[in-house]
Amino acid sequence: MGTTGQDNNDNEGKGGKDEFKRSASHFADRITADGRDGWPVAADRYRLVVSRACPWANRALISRRLLGLEEAISLAVTDPIQDERSWRFTLDPGGVDPVLDIAFLSEAYDAREQGYPGGVSVPAIVDVPSGKLVTNDFQRITLDFATEWTALHRDGAPDLYPEAHREEIDDVAESIYRDVNNGVYKAGFAVHQETYDTTVERLFARLDQVSERLSNRRYLVGDTITEADIRFFTTLVRFDTVYHGHFKCNRNKLSEDPVLWAYARDLFQTPGFGDTVDFDHITRHYHQVHTNINPTAIVPIGPDLSSWLTPHHREQLGGRPFGEATAPGPVPAAETVPPAGRA
Amino acid sequence: MGTTGQDNNDNEGKGGKDEFKRSASHFADRITADGRDGWPVAADRYRLVVSRACPWANRALISRRLLGLEEAISLAVTDPIQDERSWRFTLDPGGVDPVLDIAFLSEAYDAREQGYPGGVSVPAIVDVPSGKLVTNDFQRITLDFATEWTALHRDGAPDLYPEAHREEIDDVAESIYRDVNNGVYKAGFAVHQETYDTTVERLFARLDQVSERLSNRRYLVGDTITEADIRFFTTLVRFDTVYHGHFKCNRNKLSEDPVLWAYARDLFQTPGFGDTVDFDHITRHYHQVHTNINPTAIVPIGPDLSSWLTPHHREQLGGRPFGEATAPGPVPAAETVPPAGRA
Repeated sequence: MGTTGQDNNDNEGKGGKDEFKRSASHFADRITADGRDGWPVAADRYRLVVSRACPWANRALISRRLLGLEEAISLAVTDPIQDERSWRFTLDPGGVDPVLDIAFLSEAYDAREQGYPGGVSVPAIVDVPSGKLVTNDFQRITLDFATEWTALHRDGAPDLYPEAHREEIDDVAESIYRDVNNGVYKAGFAVHQETYDTTVERLFARLDQVSERLSNRRYLVGDTITEADIRFFTTLVRFDTVYHGHFKCNRNKLSEDPVLWAYARDLFQTPGFGDTVDFDHITRHYHQVHTNINPTAIVPIGPDLSSWLTPHHREQLGGRPFGEATAPGPVPAAETVPPAGRA
Repeated sequence: MGTTGQDNNDNEGKGGKDEFKRSASHFADRITADGRDGWPVAADRYRLVVSRACPWANRALISRRLLGLEEAISLAVTDPIQDERSWRFTLDPGGVDPVLDIAFLSEAYDAREQGYPGGVSVPAIVDVPSGKLVTNDFQRITLDFATEWTALHRDGAPDLYPEAHREEIDDVAESIYRDVNNGVYKAGFAVHQETYDTTVERLFARLDQVSERLSNRRYLVGDTITEADIRFFTTLVRFDTVYHGHFKCNRNKLSEDPVLWAYARDLFQTPGFGDTVDFDHITRHYHQVHTNINPTAIVPIGPDLSSWLTPHHREQLGGRPFGEATAPGPVPAAETVPPAGRA
């Protein structure tokens, strides 16, 4: 979750002298088909708030695209640079989200719980009629998109969390979460050399292991794209742009691991993945917001992005990206991002 | 010159709000064959003080090795981590240089000029009998090693500054100095985005141009190793370890430019080059000393160094590393550094 805040319990880049520890999501209501938490699945009722910089929000963006939920759940994109009031809608005319009519995401948090002391994070789903935050539980949101929102999926939507593979998906995703998705943050915000050393060693050990796994299979679990791939991808796509340098995960670049680099490009070039990625938002957010590790806030020239579009040859491994299902259609015009290589 | 100091005129990593500007060397006496500045070339009289972290000092280390001046000029190696009194001899027993009998290089500066307000930099040459600093003029030291110290060169020493090529060497070295050797510092310490952008653009434009030049010739000038190669090498060898990430020169790694990467490995594997390089000193110095750009002082895992020893195939371009001369012998036992890949 992309969070901000002044205290260390909520330290995505604002940490003090203690090591990085990701806080649990505070608002964990679920939007379900049966509405048991009071939030039934419904078209045109909820608004997904993301930062395109944030890997956790990026998961929700990809799931929403792959499942064709764009019309059912509208989208608000925050400025990649938070201010002291956190995520804000300064990209919108007048600095106000046109649907929620708020300038800061925190207003939806306040509408839900006055005086909530924690941080404001994305992805967040807001109930439009009441203006209240429903959930910021980034681990749950995509699973519910896949399993609870089925009535509103597009025709030909893939099954991203197939029953037969759930245990394996959870398993793979859990170790990748600990060592990779969250590991890069723990390495980047480490304040003790020993913490950094241990973390970065585990990170690359895990990447090596997953690289081996992917050397003869196209996707992480089964032979189609699943939740596990989505979760892994959003870290990989940021790796050379921000984690390698800014977070010091520099044993090697992603592009120096032939298997992972081809895997990441394969997904990037699949509709619903690369078309959700805004490298400009990514690089500006990390480098300008985390002044505790980049005090000058200089944004580096970054790696050449055009290589994301080079051939990956992963088709040779077989696998069918969407199984019996189909690829999503084009990105809605209002949601397009600058293509890689021109960020 | 590896300097340190609290003021911004002397800002190698200690800068304030102004952009990086390298100060001129203050002590520019020359040690010459005719002794016209009062410092005649002589065996066993002078001591070269270096930090193995510093690219400017590394030039002097390489020249001294190639020319076989190890016996004529003794060597003092400082701790890669300066404290508030700058370069210090904490690597030596008792924290004191056994020949100069001082704990800090600044003592030799003081012996030369009491109350000198500038920074303390390496490389420095100290007159052992008087304990006085003679010169810290890094641009001149290696040229004088090549042209004034000839009487003390080893048998078979190469001509590193051949008369017939001096104009071309100066020319090539000047543009590389401005855009590359010094450019990486200017980019790394930039405090304004515009300065960084301009600097890093010029840096990579120059690297591209030199890469083109080196695509069909083994060395920068003529067909043997010269001063121009020494000066370029000491920046290249640090590129992926510190300039790429720590100084944000991250359009690409050196190892991603096939020509420059092979050129750098060719030199690295030539006696007198790689055997002067201490990657451990390099990475600890940059990351721990420049807390203005790396406040946590965490030292990254860095790139895999074993690739420095992979075949470069540059022999195919012809050229003779030392012309009619010969390669230097082995490194004196007291001066060996940990081999690449085990730093």
